[in-house]
Amino acid sequence: MIFTFDNSENKEHLYLQVYHYYRDLILSRRLPPGSRMPSLRTCARDLHLSRTTVESAYLQLAADGYIVSRAQSGYYVTDIARQQPSPPKSQKPELPPVRYNFASSGVDRESFRFDLWQRYLKSALRQNDRLLSYGEPQGEADFRQVLSDYVRQGRNITCSPDDIVIGAGVQSLLHILCPLIRDKKTVSFPTSSFIQGSTVFSDYGFDVRYRNKDSGVIYVSPAHMTKWGEIMPVSRRMELLRHVRERNSLIIEDDFENEFVYLQKPTPSLFSLSGGRGVVYIGSFSRLLLPSIRISFMILPPELSEAYRKKSACYNQTASKAEQIALCQFIRDGHLGAQIRRLKRLYSAKMKQLLAEIQNVFGSGCRVQVGAAGTALALTIPSSRSGSELKKTARAEGLRLEILEEASGSVTLLLSCSAIPSEDFRPACELLKKLL
Amino acid sequence: MIFTFDNSENKEHLYLQVYHYYRDLILSRRLPPGSRMPSLRTCARDLHLSRTTVESAYLQLAADGYIVSRAQSGYYVTDIARQQPSPPKSQKPELPPVRYNFASSGVDRESFRFDLWQRYLKSALRQNDRLLSYGEPQGEADFRQVLSDYVRQGRNITCSPDDIVIGAGVQSLLHILCPLIRDKKTVSFPTSSFIQGSTVFSDYGFDVRYRNKDSGVIYVSPAHMTKWGEIMPVSRRMELLRHVRERNSLIIEDDFENEFVYLQKPTPSLFSLSGGRGVVYIGSFSRLLLPSIRISFMILPPELSEAYRKKSACYNQTASKAEQIALCQFIRDGHLGAQIRRLKRLYSAKMKQLLAEIQNVFGSGCRVQVGAAGTALALTIPSSRSGSELKKTARAEGLRLEILEEASGSVTLLLSCSAIPSEDFRPACELLKKLL
Repeated sequence: MIFTFDNSENKEHLYLQVYHYYRDLILSRRLPPGSRMPSLRTCARDLHLSRTTVESAYLQLAADGYIVSRAQSGYYVTDIARQQPSPPKSQKPELPPVRYNFASSGVDRESFRFDLWQRYLKSALRQNDRLLSYGEPQGEADFRQVLSDYVRQGRNITCSPDDIVIGAGVQSLLHILCPLIRDKKTVSFPTSSFIQGSTVFSDYGFDVRYRNKDSGVIYVSPAHMTKWGEIMPVSRRMELLRHVRERNSLIIEDDFENEFVYLQKPTPSLFSLSGGRGVVYIGSFSRLLLPSIRISFMILPPELSEAYRKKSACYNQTASKAEQIALCQFIRDGHLGAQIRRLKRLYSAKMKQLLAEIQNVFGSGCRVQVGAAGTALALTIPSSRSGSELKKTARAEGLRLEILEEASGSVTLLLSCSAIPSEDFRPACELLKKLL
Repeated sequence: MIFTFDNSENKEHLYLQVYHYYRDLILSRRLPPGSRMPSLRTCARDLHLSRTTVESAYLQLAADGYIVSRAQSGYYVTDIARQQPSPPKSQKPELPPVRYNFASSGVDRESFRFDLWQRYLKSALRQNDRLLSYGEPQGEADFRQVLSDYVRQGRNITCSPDDIVIGAGVQSLLHILCPLIRDKKTVSFPTSSFIQGSTVFSDYGFDVRYRNKDSGVIYVSPAHMTKWGEIMPVSRRMELLRHVRERNSLIIEDDFENEFVYLQKPTPSLFSLSGGRGVVYIGSFSRLLLPSIRISFMILPPELSEAYRKKSACYNQTASKAEQIALCQFIRDGHLGAQIRRLKRLYSAKMKQLLAEIQNVFGSGCRVQVGAAGTALALTIPSSRSGSELKKTARAEGLRLEILEEASGSVTLLLSCSAIPSEDFRPACELLKKLL
């Protein structure tokens, strides 16, 4: 609604406009029950109306039960909208709290040294002068230097800090990358589960396919080929590289959870195997530190690095500057390495324990798939219920599950051990068995 | 380069491949002087080659002066690449440090209470459980509630927290918004200066125009119509709203620096004038708090809010969760309001002082344009040099300038008072005069 400020229109018309405007907002709950109405003065000033006009409207709203006046405080929205049928978006069934969460993408609460991270962030916050200006669009220079050392040591990747772009999560990086590689037209993902990635590509007009080797862009997570942590063997990595080189296509290597590969020798990255040609490497810290830290980076091969440089001033940095400064020093002091070793030990022990409990509870009546990486396993169990039924029933009992697949008479679940404490494995498995 | 692991190939061939691979990296400075080579063991393991093969390659590299061995420590890249012609990207002329910065988008170092912000961030970091999980894709719920109260009080905007989307800066929000409004096809910006905005639209295939009222999307900053702070008067706001309503087009109202409007009555927002129909409202905190805090938000009108909800699971949140939690409590406790009042006082005093110094130094030989908002003014002065010449000469003297426009015999500069301390106004103006 547009308020016309034409003085020739009569006052009554104006006050009714104000009345209807707020009535609609209240009934649609866009002005929720209990919220404070703008003061008469503010409202009159902002709408360029007289105070009397606004007051008439408010008095009518109060008379009709939409708002109520509280002494010394102003007008407040009543819960009249609650008595109307609710809009669909707020209709959520009441659910009990989650007791056991096998479906969480969070991390183990024992895994992270909050005190240490707080110290680094506090020290970053003391760099007043640095925080007074916008960050470098590409990411802080010293942080990119540290990252280039980190990937050289950890992934045998040699790259210049100039080829590294930092962003707040993988999506922010893809938003910069996609326009640079638009001529590739098609992209292939290993599964349909990474919607946050495929959405960006389809938003940019790419044709999104699954497991299609002839696409212009191949998006792979070699350490996370399946959700239960199967990794891509070196022979297939070599084959893939040869294939894309022949076709002049591009690999995006999302090295997600490569740090959790339980083998003695981590498998070499596609980027290092290719010598950095035709491969974009993406690394993230959310699973290593805290999911709430939104810092990822990509390493561009020479031709894309050149194309990015021409456009770099067109993009603002998305990652928090203070968190970049803190993480830079955190890595320099060796804490990231220590954190990775701690997580690897922790998750490999938890996976072992979870396997043992599944054996105890389900015995030979189940099938388990475990990979060489990650924090989850796939459990196939006989079930008379469908996957969605089982998920719903379990949730009503406080157990959160993720369904991977279902066949007639059986369901495959993805059990993540990362956020659930290991002492809960047994009762959670027993509860699951009871529900089948 | 791809290493073939075929055992039938002879050892010499493999070692030369490794040699050439590293030589190229060193000469192109992708492996910069002084950096450590991967250890023989790591390199051999990752490339699935024997240690002997790698060692032969390293010895050859050392013999040819590309790397040097340091006892107990490994091999390091020499500065041989420095003796080669440098790649163009690292050729930057040596410049003196900046003494006076009239071109900074930073904020005044006196303007922000770092100690206070540190306290809020520290308290956010103590919420361990919350930080262990990923954030809500749309932004933290309590923060969105606080923002909806904030815009109701400050901008007379009534909206539900469900219609607010948080992101790490305006670009992150446009990356979500553009795919939802793609059918609008064309977008108009007031000037060509906001390339971070226009780039996102053109990346999504929009036809980008300037000052074209018939575009499908009209991007405006009503409190920042020109860089020197001219604001859009209410009459033009009303006219614009009527125009777009007739054409069913969409306004994106970037309310940048509306808090710095020096008038008694802030001009009402387009969003509130339209009753939230056909307008997307964007607000930011970078200029109010710290440029390094990457938090912005947009308020979607009902139809777009609905469309967003269907896709919301496809987007991860980009803004730091800890900073969202901190800012939420910071606003609740009234500190944002106090900060805005402080900044308004500070910048209005600085603008006055800058005007006075310009009068003192340039007298009647100049023309000044000042708006009703913001932190900058436009200064037109006679100059025999071209704009880019003046900028370059000034920079060589430690004075950073932004050129707005040039005519024959005169140059218009944008002087921002935000980052430069007021005691530097006089010497900076005098230096500028000397250079003309």
